[in-house]
Order: sequence, then C-alpha cells, then structure tokens
Amino acid sequence: MVQPQMAVLTLGIGDLARSRRFYAEGFGWTPVFENEEIAFYQMNGFVLGLWLQQALEADMRRTGLARPGAFALAHNVARQNEVQPLIDRLVAAGGRRLRDGDAPPHGGFRGYVADPDDHAWEIAWNPAWPIDAEGRVTFRA
Amino acid sequence: MVQPQMAVLTLGIGDLARSRRFYAEGFGWTPVFENEEIAFYQMNGFVLGLWLQQALEADMRRTGLARPGAFALAHNVARQNEVQPLIDRLVAAGGRRLRDGDAPPHGGFRGYVADPDDHAWEIAWNPAWPIDAEGRVTFRA
Repeated sequence: MVQPQMAVLTLGIGDLARSRRFYAEGFGWTPVFENEEIAFYQMNGFVLGLWLQQALEADMRRTGLARPGAFALAHNVARQNEVQPLIDRLVAAGGRRLRDGDAPPHGGFRGYVADPDDHAWEIAWNPAWPIDAEGRVTFRA
Repeated sequence: MVQPQMAVLTLGIGDLARSRRFYAEGFGWTPVFENEEIAFYQMNGFVLGLWLQQALEADMRRTGLARPGAFALAHNVARQNEVQPLIDRLVAAGGRRLRDGDAPPHGGFRGYVADPDDHAWEIAWNPAWPIDAEGRVTFRA
C-alpha cells in the first residue's frame, strides 16, 4: 500500500506576476520560494506550485493542456459567513465569480471563483469536516 | 490572512468504477466514502474526491471542463528506486505512461502517469523535501 499522499499540486499558469498578485491579494498567501517561472506555497501538508504552463508541459512531455481543466480545489473556512466575503475578495483580486455562496444539497455552504488562469477554487463551509490548527481536514461522512 | 490550506481536490471523472480500480490497484488506496457518483480518499491533510464530471460541472456552474487540464498532482516516494515500479504499477492498473522516471535539472528523480481520465500524476523522489509519518511534505529550497 502506497501512503495516501499528494506532495505537490502544480497549476499551469500564463503570467507569474498576475498569479502572484491574485494569491497575495485574494488569499493573503506568500510564496516560500519563487523565481522567474515558478512560485511555491507551503500548504497544509503539501506544496502548491504555480509554474509557467510551457515549462510544466515540457516536464510532463505533453502539450496543449487545457484550461479550465476538469477539477476544482476547495478552501474550507471555519464559519458560514466567511464564504461570501472571501469570494468577493478573490474576485476583487482578479478572480472570476463562477457561483456566489449558497447551500448545496449535500449540506454546508459554498461558492466558486476561477483564478486568473481559470483554475477553479471552491470556497466552502463544511461543519461536518473538522479542520485542525495546521489546516488539516478530516473526512467525516 | 487566510490559512494556506486546501481542503479538497476534486477530479472530474467519467466512470467511477474505472477510477476506483485505478486508485485501488495502482496506489492501493481505499475510499473513506463512496456512492454512485463520488468517492472520497483521506489524504495527507486534505480529501481527494473523484466526482462524475457532469455533477462537478453542475455544482461549479460551468460546462465543458477539459481533460487533460493544465495541472499535475505529485506523489512523492521515499527512495529513488521506488519511482519506476510505482509508475509501472499505475500503468498496469489502467494509467497511461507519459514519461518514465529520469532526473530533472532541478534535482531528484521523477516520471509522469495519466489516470484513466487523463489527470496527470507525477511520481517523484525529492530528497530535499522531508515527508513525515503522516505523509505531510515540507518545502525546502
């Protein structure tokens, strides 16, 4: 059995300065490393990478990776009334509003924002899934 | 400042049984929850979701999400000689080989495999980035 672990999530981007601004002004996150083609953020147990798409494609030996891709990242907040202000702040920082916060059939509260490269972030309040002090999330049915 | 945290990574999929087989036979991972349209895996601090793409798109209020998308997930292994066997096992489990293991200019050793929905996994050995017993990875420059 391989440890259920993801070490890095790398998003292909078109403009590093534009992405840096969005993640700084929207989420308030500071990279732990950056150069002219990549920025790394230390997340809750893994590393988020923003890498110029051309370099990512060369590394993967693929071309023509599409945006928006068939995936979503979710950031969970601690209280329902934090969802909409964070969506609004992300939009003000250069994101695109996909869905304002409302209650899905499966419970909680959530909305979606696309980052400047059209990568989707869900902003969610899910009271059933605890978040510890280091931001680690535990699944509960 | 918003906690640098991702709670869920949701991948849009076309066939849940096919994905379940790949993640079970390739990585050896067992869902903590599943129904007819979604499977959740407890990862190192976050939850990996495999959700039928149509349902994900309805939730995001988007259509036409593309595969392969411009991103890569990375699973890091503890030793260089674990990279290629895991790539081979993932291919045997229904993945598609994108790049066999070799040494990138930035150090370490890595290759890439696409899952049955063309979502890319990098399989990497990166001796500079420690992994703790719970699979949490720390960035080191």
